Amino acid sequence: MTPFTYHNPTRIEFGPGTENRIGECLNKDAVERVLLVYGTGSIKKNGLYERVLQSLQNAHIEYVELSGVVSNPVLSKVYEGIELSRAFDAQAILAVGGGSVIDTAKAVAAGVPGAGGDVWEFFTGARELDSALPVYTIVTLAAAASEMNGNSVITNEKTSQKYSIGSKLLNPRLSIVNPELMMSVSKEYLVYSASDIIAHAIETYFTAADHPRFQSRLVESIVKSVIELTDCLIEHPEDYHARAEFAWVSSQALNGLTTSGTGGGNFPNHMIEHALSALFNIPHGAGLSIVVPAWMSWYKEKNLPQFERFAKKVFGKTSAEEGITMLKRWYGSIGTPITLAQAHIPKERIPEIAKNAYELGIVWGMGEEYSVQDIEAILEKA
Amino acid sequence: MTPFTYHNPTRIEFGPGTENRIGECLNKDAVERVLLVYGTGSIKKNGLYERVLQSLQNAHIEYVELSGVVSNPVLSKVYEGIELSRAFDAQAILAVGGGSVIDTAKAVAAGVPGAGGDVWEFFTGARELDSALPVYTIVTLAAAASEMNGNSVITNEKTSQKYSIGSKLLNPRLSIVNPELMMSVSKEYLVYSASDIIAHAIETYFTAADHPRFQSRLVESIVKSVIELTDCLIEHPEDYHARAEFAWVSSQALNGLTTSGTGGGNFPNHMIEHALSALFNIPHGAGLSIVVPAWMSWYKEKNLPQFERFAKKVFGKTSAEEGITMLKRWYGSIGTPITLAQAHIPKERIPEIAKNAYELGIVWGMGEEYSVQDIEAILEKA
Repeated sequence: MTPFTYHNPTRIEFGPGTENRIGECLNKDAVERVLLVYGTGSIKKNGLYERVLQSLQNAHIEYVELSGVVSNPVLSKVYEGIELSRAFDAQAILAVGGGSVIDTAKAVAAGVPGAGGDVWEFFTGARELDSALPVYTIVTLAAAASEMNGNSVITNEKTSQKYSIGSKLLNPRLSIVNPELMMSVSKEYLVYSASDIIAHAIETYFTAADHPRFQSRLVESIVKSVIELTDCLIEHPEDYHARAEFAWVSSQALNGLTTSGTGGGNFPNHMIEHALSALFNIPHGAGLSIVVPAWMSWYKEKNLPQFERFAKKVFGKTSAEEGITMLKRWYGSIGTPITLAQAHIPKERIPEIAKNAYELGIVWGMGEEYSVQDIEAILEKA
Repeated sequence: MTPFTYHNPTRIEFGPGTENRIGECLNKDAVERVLLVYGTGSIKKNGLYERVLQSLQNAHIEYVELSGVVSNPVLSKVYEGIELSRAFDAQAILAVGGGSVIDTAKAVAAGVPGAGGDVWEFFTGARELDSALPVYTIVTLAAAASEMNGNSVITNEKTSQKYSIGSKLLNPRLSIVNPELMMSVSKEYLVYSASDIIAHAIETYFTAADHPRFQSRLVESIVKSVIELTDCLIEHPEDYHARAEFAWVSSQALNGLTTSGTGGGNFPNHMIEHALSALFNIPHGAGLSIVVPAWMSWYKEKNLPQFERFAKKVFGKTSAEEGITMLKRWYGSIGTPITLAQAHIPKERIPEIAKNAYELGIVWGMGEEYSVQDIEAILEKA
């Protein structure tokens, strides 16, 4: 095991009706004014918006709203939130939504205290984050694990860059997870979420410097559970227990636990996918199910024992290649794309995608040296 | 999954030499005066004591010492620590040792602020904890997971009661885990630790109200890892990686993760064992390897599917009974006792042990109704 720091201060309140406690929880933390961040209105249709406002009002908490956050959330919305928060003197940011909403809330939380500079500088690495407003979340989609980590991924629309920050300061202070709120997630978003969670778990599993047995077992447990639960939820979308397990497992896949003692590992698939979704605005999970099997075939010789282990433990197969085939076949069976063609991305655009991903890799550190040609070779397999 | 709160604010600094950072870490948290708690002097023999003092001195942190904490730590030592802390106006408690030292530090941390009452009232349930000094730990034995939870188990020598408290306020703020410090743990204490860790993981696995698949897989991963790592460490006590994995897995077994969403479960084996070690002062892990297989045989019909699952997933066996036999046989193979006779506890004392355990069960809530006769029946099997 390599040396590491593990620290996940986020408190999770998990179960039916927990969203009604948000006002009370903010009260206990002496928060009186929040910026309320949400998406394009689905929370108004299902009554969640009303319940959250009711809870805030009961607790005498004032709020202003930042609405209209979209998938692959954008920097202009973050700027808008920072301005609103400053004008209102918000003491905390409350996100009600999925990963995009939470990531936007975190970026706003990071930007509010630093009056002197541009929040995008934290994303490019030009400045280091040293303070942030506390973030609270009510989660409506289980995928990003943003509710239990300090990461935020934002797209700068002007430059087509999809960049990320990670800081303990951005770990939500409290995340409320009510699986009932996820009952109405469509099959489409369920399978994209499954693809995202699996990628979170296996990217570092394959690229880590060390493979402690418990950490490997943890990842295999996550992947097996996600596969079973997705299959179950496609058949029975209203199965509360399956929604609940799916939500919990998704948080575990990217909250710092799986990578403890592994030397970290890298996220090359995420970087290639971020280029894909920055350029073509396809859902993140759909992009990942295209990239991941292609990358696995390309990368497997670099860590054959771990790929063989994956095949055996997750699918009961003996060869690395069979493990990859099984995963790809499963992606196909649940209806998430496994080729660029299926996502209507022309082969001719591969050099452009590779260049964008390569630049992203330089900023984030892609681990090994992935050249533009390497990324093209991976994409050719898709 | 049943509703739950998950919150583990403890930060872990893991790796070689991390103990040398304790002064700097306390400094960052603006702590200037600590009570330094340790055991019967092994930290002086191996140089750890000197290194810790050096780090405190470098950071200009003042300290007073509470030494002489023994296994099955006692209330009188806690009183001594509370008096010392108050006289010195300690701002935090620093534990350097194993579970007994950390548990003592937590009890002192709980007792210092409450000037009006007796700290033992928190253990009997007569008073509820509402404030505590922060606890820092440098761990030298991997077993109790006390470094990553808010539990403290203390024996009142006057009444022969071994009682416990649990509170988020007692979660260490920081725990330093350097596996090199555990290289010299004897084979005897290694196997007792293995027994303790396995009991932490499986007690709730079998008694929980619900069994989410990921939580079950987590427990099975812990048990399989502990078995493999113990076998490895008996052969190679100085294997750093095995010591490291053993330490990390032990923290995971009782830090709130395995029980999230399971409805909690109970610790009947721990309660019976606490009576054993309160009356006979045998090592906790040795007591557990006696009680656990006996309890499993007695309890298995109450949750047969989970016992069958355990047999299959951990040992590749089909019947519940085979799983129990395999575990018992493994305990025997590593040299931890599996019968009362092996621990020189006469059969005639069973009613007395059962009565003590029964009273403990009333205070802690043993879950189901365990009668004195039930506990006697379990012990008869040992």
